Amino acid sequence: MEHAEADHAAAGDGLRPGEVAGALPPHTDAGVYFLGTIHTPWRTRGECPRRGDPDGPICAIVVAEPWRAALTGLDAHRRIQVLYWMHRARRDLVLQTPLRTGATTGSFALRSPVRPNPIASSVVTLVAIEGTTLHVRGLDCLDGTPLLDLKPDRGATPA
Amino acid sequence: MEHAEADHAAAGDGLRPGEVAGALPPHTDAGVYFLGTIHTPWRTRGECPRRGDPDGPICAIVVAEPWRAALTGLDAHRRIQVLYWMHRARRDLVLQTPLRTGATTGSFALRSPVRPNPIASSVVTLVAIEGTTLHVRGLDCLDGTPLLDLKPDRGATPA
Repeated sequence: MEHAEADHAAAGDGLRPGEVAGALPPHTDAGVYFLGTIHTPWRTRGECPRRGDPDGPICAIVVAEPWRAALTGLDAHRRIQVLYWMHRARRDLVLQTPLRTGATTGSFALRSPVRPNPIASSVVTLVAIEGTTLHVRGLDCLDGTPLLDLKPDRGATPA
Repeated sequence: MEHAEADHAAAGDGLRPGEVAGALPPHTDAGVYFLGTIHTPWRTRGECPRRGDPDGPICAIVVAEPWRAALTGLDAHRRIQVLYWMHRARRDLVLQTPLRTGATTGSFALRSPVRPNPIASSVVTLVAIEGTTLHVRGLDCLDGTPLLDLKPDRGATPA
C-alpha cells in the first residue's frame, strides 16, 4: 500500500501525535522526467487499495510518445516493475503515525507515500501492450500518477 | 544486475550497433534529494557483480544525519528495499544492445542503468544498523552511489 497510511489531517500542520517534520534541504540533487501517466479507477487516497492486487482491475500506463522505442521487447515479460512519483505526498516527515497501527515509526520503516523522495515501486502483471499503452493488473496508485520507469521484475529476469 | 550491460564504448558517440539515443526533454519534472551514500567494494562497473548476491560482501549504507530519525523501527525488518541513483549512467538511450546478449532491446525491457531516470531498486538483507549506518548484503552498485530511499521489502510488510 502506498497511500491510505498518509492521509494526514488537513487542519493545522497536518501532524498526528508523535509525527515529526524535518526541514528539507534547500535544493534537490538530481532531476527526474515524468515519462507518462498512470490511469487507475482511484481518484482519492481513501479509494486506493492498501496494496496492489494481482487480481485487481486492469489499469493503463500510458507512456509518452518520445519513449515509445524504449518499450521494445517489454512484451516478453509478464511481471514488470513500475516506478512512479507520488506527486500528492508531502516529503518532510521523518516520523509518522499511521492511522492503521497508531505506532510512531520512521519514514524509512514504512511504505507510506510520505517520504523525502516520493518514489513508489510496484510489481504488476502485464496483460497487453497496445501502442504506447500498457494494460496491467496490480497497481494501487491514484489516477493521474506520473510514471518514472518500467523494468522487467528482477525475479523474472534471466540470470 | 544494474551495471555491466551499459559499459558503453568511450569512443565516438558511445553507441553500439542498433543503439538509439533520443533527445532528452528540455527540463526535468521533479527533483530528488540524495539522502546518503552507499559504500561497496566496487570502484568500476566492470568490477560490479551482475546482480546482488544475498551471500555477497557486507556493504554500508550511510544515511545523512538529517534523516536519522527516519530509520526508527527499520531494524525490525530483515529484507529492505533500497532505491539509489545510478549517477554515472547516461540517460538518453531508448534502444540498447547489451554486450552479454548482443540483442537490441528497449531500455524499459532491460534492467540496465542506462535509462531516462537512472533509479535502481535492490532488495538487501539487513545485517545490522549502527547509528546512521546500515550494514547489508545483496548490493551490486558502485562505491559512492547516492541513496534515494529505504523501505521494508513489500514481501516482508505485514498485510
